Amino acid sequence: MKRADLTEKLLDIKREKGWTWKYICEAIGGMSPILVTGAVLGQHKMTKPMAAKAAELFGLTKAEAALLNEVPMRGAYAPMPPTDPLIYRFYELILVNGPAIKLLIEEEFGDGIMSAIDFDMDITRKADPKGDRVQIGMTGKFLPFKYYGAKGNEMQLGFKEE
Amino acid sequence: MKRADLTEKLLDIKREKGWTWKYICEAIGGMSPILVTGAVLGQHKMTKPMAAKAAELFGLTKAEAALLNEVPMRGAYAPMPPTDPLIYRFYELILVNGPAIKLLIEEEFGDGIMSAIDFDMDITRKADPKGDRVQIGMTGKFLPFKYYGAKGNEMQLGFKEE
Amino acid sequence: MKRADLTEKLLDIKREKGWTWKYICEAIGGMSPILVTGAVLGQHKMTKPMAAKAAELFGLTKAEAALLNEVPMRGAYAPMPPTDPLIYRFYELILVNGPAIKLLIEEEFGDGIMSAIDFDMDITRKADPKGDRVQIGMTGKFLPFKYYGAKGNEMQLGFKEE
Amino acid sequence: MKRADLTEKLLDIKREKGWTWKYICEAIGGMSPILVTGAVLGQHKMTKPMAAKAAELFGLTKAEAALLNEVPMRGAYAPMPPTDPLIYRFYELILVNGPAIKLLIEEEFGDGIMSAIDFDMDITRKADPKGDRVQIGMTGKFLPFKYYGAKGNEMQLGFKEE
Amino acid sequence: MKRADLTEKLLDIKREKGWTWKYICEAIGGMSPILVTGAVLGQHKMTKPMAAKAAELFGLTKAEAALLNEVPMRGAYAPMPPTDPLIYRFYELILVNGPAIKLLIEEEFGDGIMSAIDFDMDITRKADPKGDRVQIGMTGKFLPFKYYGAKGNEMQLGFKEE
Amino acid sequence: MKRADLTEKLLDIKREKGWTWKYICEAIGGMSPILVTGAVLGQHKMTKPMAAKAAELFGLTKAEAALLNEVPMRGAYAPMPPTDPLIYRFYELILVNGPAIKLLIEEEFGDGIMSAIDFDMDITRKADPKGDRVQIGMTGKFLPFKYYGAKGNEMQLGFKEE
Amino acid sequence: MKRADLTEKLLDIKREKGWTWKYICEAIGGMSPILVTGAVLGQHKMTKPMAAKAAELFGLTKAEAALLNEVPMRGAYAPMPPTDPLIYRFYELILVNGPAIKLLIEEEFGDGIMSAIDFDMDITRKADPKGDRVQIGMTGKFLPFKYYGAKGNEMQLGFKEE
Amino acid sequence: MKRADLTEKLLDIKREKGWTWKYICEAIGGMSPILVTGAVLGQHKMTKPMAAKAAELFGLTKAEAALLNEVPMRGAYAPMPPTDPLIYRFYELILVNGPAIKLLIEEEFGDGIMSAIDFDMDITRKADPKGDRVQIGMTGKFLPFKYYGAKGNEMQLGFKEE
Amino acid sequence: MKRADLTEKLLDIKREKGWTWKYICEAIGGMSPILVTGAVLGQHKMTKPMAAKAAELFGLTKAEAALLNEVPMRGAYAPMPPTDPLIYRFYELILVNGPAIKLLIEEEFGDGIMSAIDFDMDITRKADPKGDRVQIGMTGKFLPFKYYGAKGNEMQLGFKEE
Amino acid sequence: MKRADLTEKLLDIKREKGWTWKYICEAIGGMSPILVTGAVLGQHKMTKPMAAKAAELFGLTKAEAALLNEVPMRGAYAPMPPTDPLIYRFYELILVNGPAIKLLIEEEFGDGIMSAIDFDMDITRKADPKGDRVQIGMTGKFLPFKYYGAKGNEMQLGFKEE
Repeated sequence: MKRADLTEKLLDIKREKGWTWKYICEAIGGMSPILVTGAVLGQHKMTKPMAAKAAELFGLTKAEAALLNEVPMRGAYAPMPPTDPLIYRFYELILVNGPAIKLLIEEEFGDGIMSAIDFDMDITRKADPKGDRVQIGMTGKFLPFKYYGAKGNEMQLGFKEE
Repeated sequence: MKRADLTEKLLDIKREKGWTWKYICEAIGGMSPILVTGAVLGQHKMTKPMAAKAAELFGLTKAEAALLNEVPMRGAYAPMPPTDPLIYRFYELILVNGPAIKLLIEEEFGDGIMSAIDFDMDITRKADPKGDRVQIGMTGKFLPFKYYGAKGNEMQLGFKEE
Repeated sequence: MKRADLTEKLLDIKREKGWTWKYICEAIGGMSPILVTGAVLGQHKMTKPMAAKAAELFGLTKAEAALLNEVPMRGAYAPMPPTDPLIYRFYELILVNGPAIKLLIEEEFGDGIMSAIDFDMDITRKADPKGDRVQIGMTGKFLPFKYYGAKGNEMQLGFKEE
Repeated sequence: MKRADLTEKLLDIKREKGWTWKYICEAIGGMSPILVTGAVLGQHKMTKPMAAKAAELFGLTKAEAALLNEVPMRGAYAPMPPTDPLIYRFYELILVNGPAIKLLIEEEFGDGIMSAIDFDMDITRKADPKGDRVQIGMTGKFLPFKYYGAKGNEMQLGFKEE
Repeated sequence: MKRADLTEKLLDIKREKGWTWKYICEAIGGMSPILVTGAVLGQHKMTKPMAAKAAELFGLTKAEAALLNEVPMRGAYAPMPPTDPLIYRFYELILVNGPAIKLLIEEEFGDGIMSAIDFDMDITRKADPKGDRVQIGMTGKFLPFKYYGAKGNEMQLGFKEE
Repeated sequence: MKRADLTEKLLDIKREKGWTWKYICEAIGGMSPILVTGAVLGQHKMTKPMAAKAAELFGLTKAEAALLNEVPMRGAYAPMPPTDPLIYRFYELILVNGPAIKLLIEEEFGDGIMSAIDFDMDITRKADPKGDRVQIGMTGKFLPFKYYGAKGNEMQLGFKEE
Repeated sequence: MKRADLTEKLLDIKREKGWTWKYICEAIGGMSPILVTGAVLGQHKMTKPMAAKAAELFGLTKAEAALLNEVPMRGAYAPMPPTDPLIYRFYELILVNGPAIKLLIEEEFGDGIMSAIDFDMDITRKADPKGDRVQIGMTGKFLPFKYYGAKGNEMQLGFKEE
Repeated sequence: MKRADLTEKLLDIKREKGWTWKYICEAIGGMSPILVTGAVLGQHKMTKPMAAKAAELFGLTKAEAALLNEVPMRGAYAPMPPTDPLIYRFYELILVNGPAIKLLIEEEFGDGIMSAIDFDMDITRKADPKGDRVQIGMTGKFLPFKYYGAKGNEMQLGFKEE
Repeated sequence: MKRADLTEKLLDIKREKGWTWKYICEAIGGMSPILVTGAVLGQHKMTKPMAAKAAELFGLTKAEAALLNEVPMRGAYAPMPPTDPLIYRFYELILVNGPAIKLLIEEEFGDGIMSAIDFDMDITRKADPKGDRVQIGMTGKFLPFKYYGAKGNEMQLGFKEE
Repeated sequence: MKRADLTEKLLDIKREKGWTWKYICEAIGGMSPILVTGAVLGQHKMTKPMAAKAAELFGLTKAEAALLNEVPMRGAYAPMPPTDPLIYRFYELILVNGPAIKLLIEEEFGDGIMSAIDFDMDITRKADPKGDRVQIGMTGKFLPFKYYGAKGNEMQLGFKEE
């Protein structure tokens, strides 16, 4: 059983039952809706309690629940560059603004990155008389680039220090 | 004079003067720091007043200022997929979470996209005892997909209606 | 059930019944023929009434109708660059004329884009003694690039303003 | 002298003089603005009279005017897929709607293509209280796919008929 | 039923019957052998009479015959660049000689293209004591690039002229 | 001195002198016009006598003439897939018709290829009341795929036979 | 029946029977082991006698034997660049040494290529106290690039000379 | 001044002086040799003291030293997939072993990644009678994938918690 | 039976039985866990004794065990560049550090490579109060680039020396 | 000074002097002609004595000679897939025959590769009445894939054994 086939099965059940993502995310719980939705799509692992709730909700076999509890091969659901306009707009934001984001984060935080692993995100509606807006908030832990080795010009590299 | 060459010139002056992006963004003003920084990198147009301030700050010729006031060929500064780790993490966020973001926005707003044009973003530091976090806020106008034409099953398409 | 499989099923029925696209578009209605045809091909969502009419027309199950009412992963039907000569000619028009179109739109409207979401298009036959012509009309809402933030050089970015 | 270098020179002069594309297109004349603008960008040949007017306008050498009169290697000005958002939206229109356009043209005209060579296009502003629209009109000669050869099952192919 | 699956079915029948392409092309008739063979491979539409003969020859259902009468998504049969040596040699001829062909056609005919739609081709054996040669003849209608619009420097673009 | 730079020099001289390709091909001689034009573009070697004539015609140095006499790195002049419409049409002919060409050549000649090395081609104008046609003739030696080795099931491979 | 599916069937039988390639190559005979092995993998045509022996060996149907006797779409078995280390090393040899091989062959033989069609290859073990070596011998017919046309500067191109 | 040009300058000086990397790494100090070497190649930022030492060592201007102190656009030095055999072998190790590494890290540590930012590496020679070995040690901080939000099924996402 | 299908079967059994990779690697034995895990994923050959143990453990047929004993087409399990974040971090390490690794290995060992074939690797947990680390040790035999041929300027190449 | 620029300089001198590769290879000596030619093209390191001879032959500076003595970034001279027909034929040989070569080497030698590092090759002319042949001999050391670790099912991996 491939994870992609299980995804199709879950989407079929959602469609037949007429469930919303909000309903599914609350029923499975345990993570933010973006993560739960992503987990249903095969982009994240569900914890054991989440997989158990999902199994109950969708009526899954034990092996299917075990598959939901595995860390999937992430990033395999949609092509890059995205062909879908909604996803492409996010890609374009990085294409156009990525270099400026890099320079401003580095000026504020120093050499490093914003973690994509210790990361959270939420999406909310922001009412606006000129047309409601999609509001996205993200925080990611800043991870400073570590400069290991070479104290006092002697080679004392990380691995050898043990 | 190619826009890319002007970018190199601006970065050289910044480097020689020891200016920060904060200093440059405040001196040029008129837009958020991400947009001003992007405009220096050749990813956005500067308005006439901004281009004038930039020309004064960097000591540019009239033609160089005019070039800053042109809409550039956006997206040409860095390759995709990104090779730089800081920019790549954002790319990965879309690769992994893009499909879930799509489904949740569509469930909340209906068929459409978050605009990448009527869009703003800011980056701030969020203090955290476990390590400070990069906090990014974005809002983009939701643009509903328009279903033109065919009222009452007669063909009354947009272009013909005039 | 994948959307691509449903597309094949719809095309099989159309073929067996000997229906034209004109017939199908009128029967389903609700949108211009390009959008209805695209929706049958899995490139657009059908509204609930359209999906109901399509279900009746094609004899679909409730789950199949629900799938037609979902926003699909757009852009997945044919490869880019196009291999089909008819579609390639449109690609070539952008390849060759895209930069000129960009400069003329920007000169007339300012910095921004023509929306591909608030957009309509029709295709008609234009009789011509030297050979009939395909006539395509499109209108898309002009979306000005928004320059948020930094009024009076104070940082007042969109997201913080709330 | 490469055509791309001449393009940069022409753009530099335009910038220094503060000319609009409208001014340039009227001064050179002879074709629609999209074609003249494209010719300045190195995507089309200028006719001899146009090249002469361009040479006068921009103060070009005889060799530069001759270069404007050559058919350039078209399509070399910007990458595909487009990185610039304005051009990308047109690319996306084909990505999403190309297959439907194909089916509708074929149903109306039969097997063939819309010519990208015997083709014209104009761009105008369409006032709209909800926001002005970019209006694009195109007509291209329909070219029916020719089924040569094999009359009465004898091989009488085009080339042999001479 | 996908066109690619029908192709496999037709090839299976040809193989089981031991038919040659020459036999099939004569039986179906109506076009040159290259076009008929291509139509069997799903690269061209068969006309209704041809599809009827093919249906009789191969014993096809009505829906299969209808599918042969549809314009297929051309160009989907083999990858580019070609992996097969026979096809690659033609690709290489364009890779190496394309630019020279372009310049010579343009010098002889002016700005334009050789049509790939109003086009015919035949392949014959040319006996040669040093080894027989494959002889390919092609003719394609020369299509001059049309320079529409702007008579007398007034904007009189094609689409507006109606 | 790179071959590409010499090409630009030759094209500059052609442009300044106002020469046609016909003139250049006759002056250099020794090969068909497609080959001579290709040789000027850096896609073929000129023989010593041709290089001498070219050196005289263009006023080249001895080293430049020697460079014309070298076999160049072929295929480096234009990108694939072609961006230029004229060259693209030939690419498309292979994309669409390549598989049929393969099957018909193999049925007529057996397993093998049409040589792209022992190959000639000419381009002529074919008058036609419906619009003149580009007529291309090619012949390439058929090279049968050689099945070496294993006579009588003993391994007697080519290399070992010496 | 696709050729790739027949390949899988043949490999399954080989696996179940525990046959070696040496056994299969001797049983089918008629070509060197590289060619026979490649033919089993769907990269070469088997001659009629070979296909008959293969049909007997593997217990194939008449249609399967006919498929083995067809010229396959070569080059479709493994991706390029190769992901398999053994095959990649050969790719790397060309990547690194290709240009030097080109210059040395051209210096020795003149302008032309080594045929990949009139070509043979064998692989043998070469004992070596420092570790046995894989020894590969290849010979390919040198094919001189033919310079057709233009005798005495009159256009007398190959195709017209007939 | 582009960072790539400064790299070439540094390599030229190294070559003229006959310095080893060991000498340069010790003279600049402050990091492990891999990081210092990478920083000279434009893949890492040098700290201010390192940049000062490098400026002294190489005789750089103040602007050049400032450039060494900037975070570069990482990953731009060599293409991927690597063409150089030494670098390719590392690429191949990931190509072949990446999935197994993923599964074993996840079984030992849970869902997460090995940081490429909080990471150190050293390279040493390991004497071996059968041929010395390259020994590489790496340690990277394990970063557990954080599952934010949704405590007790209430939405309490990271960004909203502020 | 394709190797990829056997992999799915093995993963299904592992999932149903609730086995860990540690358990499987110990049960099959014979190689390091990375190699055994990779062999289960179809990236390595299992030796006959290993395949026998695997057959017993997983309850495989004789043909399935034989397939495990074949050298697979390596590198086919996951795409490159990796979409999975855990595997991507390793790719990034090469992207960023590959050139420095190359220079340091060459300075220490001379011209050559670290073998990816005579290679071993282990992964262990390194406890660290700031967060445990993934520790990876690798050794690969250094293979010096061999400069064959040309003793005393006579051509005495490797192959001819026999 | 980039290695690619030095290559151009060396080729210019060769051209001006009228030297053959045979002459250059004998003058520099020390390796087979393929390696020496490759070293001139920047694909191999020259040993110190070779670099000294090359410096004398070409009249190079000390820094240029030092550059010849460095290991270059191999594989950067020509694109892949090759555009040049001579080099492409070798690429095609791998594309078509690679899988068969893999299976035969593995059957004869076991799991492993033919080294591309401990490798030699020569090219000679093989007279043949039907047309002379290019004869290429290669030998590469067979490197068996090493299965480290896990003796007696205890984990005793290579790196830990120290």
